[in-house]
Amino acid sequence: MRQSQLFTKTKKETPKDETARSAQLLLRAGFVHKELAGVYSFLPLGLRVVNRIVAIVREEMQSLGAVELSMSSLQDSNVWKSTDRWSDASVDVWFKTKFKNDTEVGLAFTHEDPLTRMMKGYVSSYRDLPVFLYQFQTKFRNELRAKSGLLRTREFLMKDLYSFTATKEDLDAFYEKAAAAYSKIWQRVGIGSQTVRTFASGGSFSKFSDEFQTVCDAGEDTIYLEKDKSMAVNKEVYTDEVLKELGKTKSDFDEVRAIEVGNIFKLGTRFSEPLGLTYTDEAGKSHPVIMGSYGIGPARVMATAVELFNDEKGIIWPATIAPFDVHVVELNPKKDAAISTEAEKLVKELEASGKEVLHDDRDLSPGQKFADSDLIGIPVRVVVSEKTMKAGTFEVKERNTGEVVHMTMEELGRTT
Amino acid sequence: MRQSQLFTKTKKETPKDETARSAQLLLRAGFVHKELAGVYSFLPLGLRVVNRIVAIVREEMQSLGAVELSMSSLQDSNVWKSTDRWSDASVDVWFKTKFKNDTEVGLAFTHEDPLTRMMKGYVSSYRDLPVFLYQFQTKFRNELRAKSGLLRTREFLMKDLYSFTATKEDLDAFYEKAAAAYSKIWQRVGIGSQTVRTFASGGSFSKFSDEFQTVCDAGEDTIYLEKDKSMAVNKEVYTDEVLKELGKTKSDFDEVRAIEVGNIFKLGTRFSEPLGLTYTDEAGKSHPVIMGSYGIGPARVMATAVELFNDEKGIIWPATIAPFDVHVVELNPKKDAAISTEAEKLVKELEASGKEVLHDDRDLSPGQKFADSDLIGIPVRVVVSEKTMKAGTFEVKERNTGEVVHMTMEELGRTT
Repeated sequence: MRQSQLFTKTKKETPKDETARSAQLLLRAGFVHKELAGVYSFLPLGLRVVNRIVAIVREEMQSLGAVELSMSSLQDSNVWKSTDRWSDASVDVWFKTKFKNDTEVGLAFTHEDPLTRMMKGYVSSYRDLPVFLYQFQTKFRNELRAKSGLLRTREFLMKDLYSFTATKEDLDAFYEKAAAAYSKIWQRVGIGSQTVRTFASGGSFSKFSDEFQTVCDAGEDTIYLEKDKSMAVNKEVYTDEVLKELGKTKSDFDEVRAIEVGNIFKLGTRFSEPLGLTYTDEAGKSHPVIMGSYGIGPARVMATAVELFNDEKGIIWPATIAPFDVHVVELNPKKDAAISTEAEKLVKELEASGKEVLHDDRDLSPGQKFADSDLIGIPVRVVVSEKTMKAGTFEVKERNTGEVVHMTMEELGRTT
Repeated sequence: MRQSQLFTKTKKETPKDETARSAQLLLRAGFVHKELAGVYSFLPLGLRVVNRIVAIVREEMQSLGAVELSMSSLQDSNVWKSTDRWSDASVDVWFKTKFKNDTEVGLAFTHEDPLTRMMKGYVSSYRDLPVFLYQFQTKFRNELRAKSGLLRTREFLMKDLYSFTATKEDLDAFYEKAAAAYSKIWQRVGIGSQTVRTFASGGSFSKFSDEFQTVCDAGEDTIYLEKDKSMAVNKEVYTDEVLKELGKTKSDFDEVRAIEVGNIFKLGTRFSEPLGLTYTDEAGKSHPVIMGSYGIGPARVMATAVELFNDEKGIIWPATIAPFDVHVVELNPKKDAAISTEAEKLVKELEASGKEVLHDDRDLSPGQKFADSDLIGIPVRVVVSEKTMKAGTFEVKERNTGEVVHMTMEELGRTT
């Protein structure tokens, strides 16, 4: 893609109303635009990163045998009244609105309740189970304060997976498979070595849930990380009683800050019972369906990666979720038309070998172009200039290490 | 994909609260689920159709040189006050809600206003123009009545494209390119020969706009279709004055019902002026940016295709937007395990040749399976049974014509 077509521009000033480093960088580099406190639009660069995260998550959901659907954002109050979650006293993040006839409706902050009701039309026998469903759908949460930029927003895309099984044993088995898929996702998006499965409160659903916490000073959560980094315990359940149950003592843990990038819940019959989602077993006996839910917010993953990987010059994207694979930067194209021609040829070669390329074809100074490239943070930068053309090789710089090598077009096609 | 994994079931009963044939069929066949009047969730089959339409539309947007982004659903009231579109008197389809601190926010019914404001950060010179942006994003419209099923809903995905140009001439040229892209889209999704460019009111933006209307008795609009079917005039502007301007007379037209599947507007400076989106020309003089907007609702296109293509047995999908390319139906798999093995082999062969396949592996009667297959409406049905295995060929039926032929696996791989 030509950078002249991208329309966004980088900004030198740090936005005054953002304290999170990730929000500052993503705004300055033109990945997102702030509409309201806690509400962001995704510009082409940001949308590309989110889409790459979504594609990785989708692959892992398909590997679990889950099927994709898309539930509505506007929700029927009746279903939430059945589960006692409609009042602001029970759920403090509702956005509500009204039809013209004054019928009150909710904006989805999650989808367990309407999905459970819907499944009554499709599940009646043990033969209909298990079912695993997921979606990528907007969630609206009326947060009292929105102060961590992209890490906690009032409107965000969420991947939510739901399991419907006949027995608790089937839930337990799928839950561990889902946890393993989550670990694989953190590895694939590049935050695996900082992310740890964490014992957390199960809320009203069960004694415990599992969170996946990425250790990072910018995090809103406090967790206790085992010294060997194999697991952690959220502050909210870090009690003598829980530690005893886990066979651990406080000396095993260090207190750290962390970002919750995913969470998984054993819902049991919390929703199936009040909503009447039941199945009949082989003997003809009726039981409530056993449920689980499993969430990931792709934009929060994006912001977490930026918190972890940046320097004073800008973002350093993990290769798998970068908006582009290679940034081809042509210098002084107005001086010699052959430079643009050479850059275009290189872009075509790289694209033919399966790379996504951003081509800086703008008429700006080399200094501005290099600063933009460092800020945007594409893993590999290739310079095409009068000098490189004379040398017969390209100047290839790795954003992460800063290492510069010189390569021919053939070498580049093979190695980037 | 295995049909046993799909979880949805077809329904025999026609939903009592739906009058549109498309909604009845899409609900019965398990493409969508109704959450509220005018609010639908998309089940796996429906999501697949929408995604195929989206993919076609996206290709055509990219061909226009447009770049994809994604704006927020929650919108700042201030921007709408600047353009005098915040009050319910000026816009009668608003859904509004509130932050915890009582700040009123809107749910996007369209995105011209916040997008125009955002572009002030990126456009200042003639060198920054033109810019063409598009998104696939949910729109919320508080319709007084929702009575046409999927044809008019309170929440729907929309592709909206926006053009920002320096001059009216640049707008006119892009507008015609966009109109041509729209015509190509109707052809590609299979509704081209029923869809006609239609003169319509330009509302508060300009004298005329162009609608793309699909001739269909279920449509909510009345249009006057020229006898040679090359163009049409919407009832709202079907006056002697307009006909004179077009050089036509009433005898040239027939009155028909139609569904508006797309519309394009020359916005001019309607938004750029009040919001102060300006550019400086080469002489240093400031001008408001000239805008256009271009919409398509993929789910309405889906419902329109169903209105056009169905029979008493169910839906007949155009091949390009069908949820799957081939429906492999195995009969009596419990009777002989070799039938399932053969069906699986066939599915793998077809998938290897690039086909998307739904494999009916369920233990149901042949009658039930055939009825489901006709209702769901995948273009090609292939039966694998004891009989076909003896014959050494598969029974291949075209959903559209009902024509049955017998083919070997090799022939199938080449022809479907």
